[in-house]
Amino acid sequence: MLQIAMISTGEEVLHGDILDTNAAWLSRLFFQHGFALSRRTTVGDQLEALATEIEHCSLTSDIVVINGGLGPTSDDLTAQAAAIASDVGLEQSDYWVEQMQVKYQKLGREMPKTNLKQAMLPEGAELLENPIGTACGFAMKLNRAWLFFTPGVPSEFKQMVQVEIVPRLTRAFPKVAARDCLRFYTFGLSESGISETLSPLSLPKGYEIGYRSSLPFIEIKLFAPRGDEQAHSLQQTMVSLLGDNVVGVGKTLPELVGELLVKQDLSLTIAEQSTGGWLTSWLQDFPNAKAKLRQGWMLAANTEPEMATKDLLASALAIATAARDDTASDIALVSGPVHDEKVAVALSTPQGDWAQLIKTKRRYASNDHRNMVATVMLDMLRRWLDDRAVIGRYESIQRESEIFLPADR
Amino acid sequence: MLQIAMISTGEEVLHGDILDTNAAWLSRLFFQHGFALSRRTTVGDQLEALATEIEHCSLTSDIVVINGGLGPTSDDLTAQAAAIASDVGLEQSDYWVEQMQVKYQKLGREMPKTNLKQAMLPEGAELLENPIGTACGFAMKLNRAWLFFTPGVPSEFKQMVQVEIVPRLTRAFPKVAARDCLRFYTFGLSESGISETLSPLSLPKGYEIGYRSSLPFIEIKLFAPRGDEQAHSLQQTMVSLLGDNVVGVGKTLPELVGELLVKQDLSLTIAEQSTGGWLTSWLQDFPNAKAKLRQGWMLAANTEPEMATKDLLASALAIATAARDDTASDIALVSGPVHDEKVAVALSTPQGDWAQLIKTKRRYASNDHRNMVATVMLDMLRRWLDDRAVIGRYESIQRESEIFLPADR
Repeated sequence: MLQIAMISTGEEVLHGDILDTNAAWLSRLFFQHGFALSRRTTVGDQLEALATEIEHCSLTSDIVVINGGLGPTSDDLTAQAAAIASDVGLEQSDYWVEQMQVKYQKLGREMPKTNLKQAMLPEGAELLENPIGTACGFAMKLNRAWLFFTPGVPSEFKQMVQVEIVPRLTRAFPKVAARDCLRFYTFGLSESGISETLSPLSLPKGYEIGYRSSLPFIEIKLFAPRGDEQAHSLQQTMVSLLGDNVVGVGKTLPELVGELLVKQDLSLTIAEQSTGGWLTSWLQDFPNAKAKLRQGWMLAANTEPEMATKDLLASALAIATAARDDTASDIALVSGPVHDEKVAVALSTPQGDWAQLIKTKRRYASNDHRNMVATVMLDMLRRWLDDRAVIGRYESIQRESEIFLPADR
Repeated sequence: MLQIAMISTGEEVLHGDILDTNAAWLSRLFFQHGFALSRRTTVGDQLEALATEIEHCSLTSDIVVINGGLGPTSDDLTAQAAAIASDVGLEQSDYWVEQMQVKYQKLGREMPKTNLKQAMLPEGAELLENPIGTACGFAMKLNRAWLFFTPGVPSEFKQMVQVEIVPRLTRAFPKVAARDCLRFYTFGLSESGISETLSPLSLPKGYEIGYRSSLPFIEIKLFAPRGDEQAHSLQQTMVSLLGDNVVGVGKTLPELVGELLVKQDLSLTIAEQSTGGWLTSWLQDFPNAKAKLRQGWMLAANTEPEMATKDLLASALAIATAARDDTASDIALVSGPVHDEKVAVALSTPQGDWAQLIKTKRRYASNDHRNMVATVMLDMLRRWLDDRAVIGRYESIQRESEIFLPADR
């Protein structure tokens, strides 16, 4: 099996001031191309530690991606560490000096002398293009490994990996099988529940199922040999097995709801108490949903301590119909106040009004609780738009009561 | 210098499915206690790779924290890897079996047999308590290093590090100087601008300044020898040098605004177009601000293409006064629609109304843009509550125009 390592550099990453999102991104991308990482290391900006780590990885791995430390300042030491590890000198790439000068000319500025450092590469290294910034990357062979040196700026890093590195790897290791990844999302099922439901499936050779929990959804990934014909029908079978709780195939819940709203030309108003604007704010990133969202309200939640269950439901329903009428929207979604850990959520439509009183089985941080309740609201709407039972079954949520009032009451 | 390493285990972390927040947290905490990490490694759930990594770190480091892989399932291999690396067997801790039985009794359930695996520790290892879960940790000396094995569940991990590990380290390495960390936040200044402003300061021995950019704020950290008397006056000097753009000392902007609203007993209403509910939703996590927030509106932004600058300002002002009157709030904050990359934001108070038309100098993702504009809104309120100039100077934001209408107009 290929041994593949990544080395991240930089004090900020090491001391936890920034999360290493480049590493997570590379891991995912490489995995999909069949190049699963076997180890990742983070070291600070110390020349010797960095050179030692590069050498260690060059002896134990086949492919090593080194990220960061290619900038113009004195604590950017990666090229020098690479030269030490491979026992060569640094030499200037005249080509890259020219490229940097062109970049600065376009900005109407003179290139600072400090940038010359960024054109100093270990002797014999192959330059990797960076069309965005001034930090070129480079590739070199050392001991057992191919080493790829990349800039820390995420946009520059990602472009270099995709355009320069992955094609080189695919050429160098043609037997490594790239895989397709088909995704869909579920809401309201547990990972063990999903795995049990899918257990009757027998996967063809080269197929694999992965889960990723991203509160409150679980993403299900089907890895398949690239271009394999069975992949889509297999995914369809998985989707059917999981039924109602699949909230988006190849798309997220707000994307799906947005599409359905646009297709059916329906406008939406939202009134939020316990969710405090979460749902309204969440939908802003999804153009279709945003286009159909007419108004959002956040109302301070003043409940009376003695409020009964049926009052909570009735109040959410009343707000939903009022919100729909006041704004002349086709649909209204409402979250009531939190009362004794319970929340009423309501959906008002031309066809009738639904409300349910729910309680999460676990206790969540307030932020996560809003997320959870907002997702139930959006899921009610998804179910209605998609002609499914509006009141769903969720493993992690307890339903205390529910009500449906048809429009022609 | 002490060499301190962390090893994270688990396929999910390695393949980028989850971000390694435990590592970032440990790095920060250790740094504050004077134990700066020198390297971090992530390996998958492979017995041999894990054992090799443990051995490698035990030869090159003084302190190693290993995280994850202490669960009851077959892919939890850390104890076994530790035993292989140190060439000893595993033995059952009867004490821990008892502890687990008690935990299960409290839940009214029988302990599954599979949990016995969690009481199997390398011979000679010292048990580390886990009052929350069933995965106990353990400590052992190997080669040059003290090894600490910890569970992957964040709450259990954090408790074990704080209660079991840090005190052991402080005892074992009494010369390592713990440091205090005093924090404050700025908005509207660049890192290089801040560093230039603070450059006249001469720091006493043992002091250090750190920056952390967390869009749209920059957090400034002053590290000081523990309990040193000068620390607070030095921080005060830094705060004075940076002036108006300091938005919170030891607290964040929404915390500060919330405190000031409660202290001055003022209620708030928010109407958002371009920010789409961001500000309303943001304030939900801050009890003081939430308590004084009467209503939030998100209005769909239908601008006419020909809208002039003064109309944008006038419309934001009109919405602000209307929102304040309609809800009988003391204060209203408003963001208008985005028009030609510009946004009008307005603040209405008993003392008068302010509005400014702003444009970010860089282009941001829509999410980040809402964050930025919402922060300007909140900063206007902070400045007003704190008796400062309401219209601030921000390096990253261009102001196109501004207006002030006193209340007695």
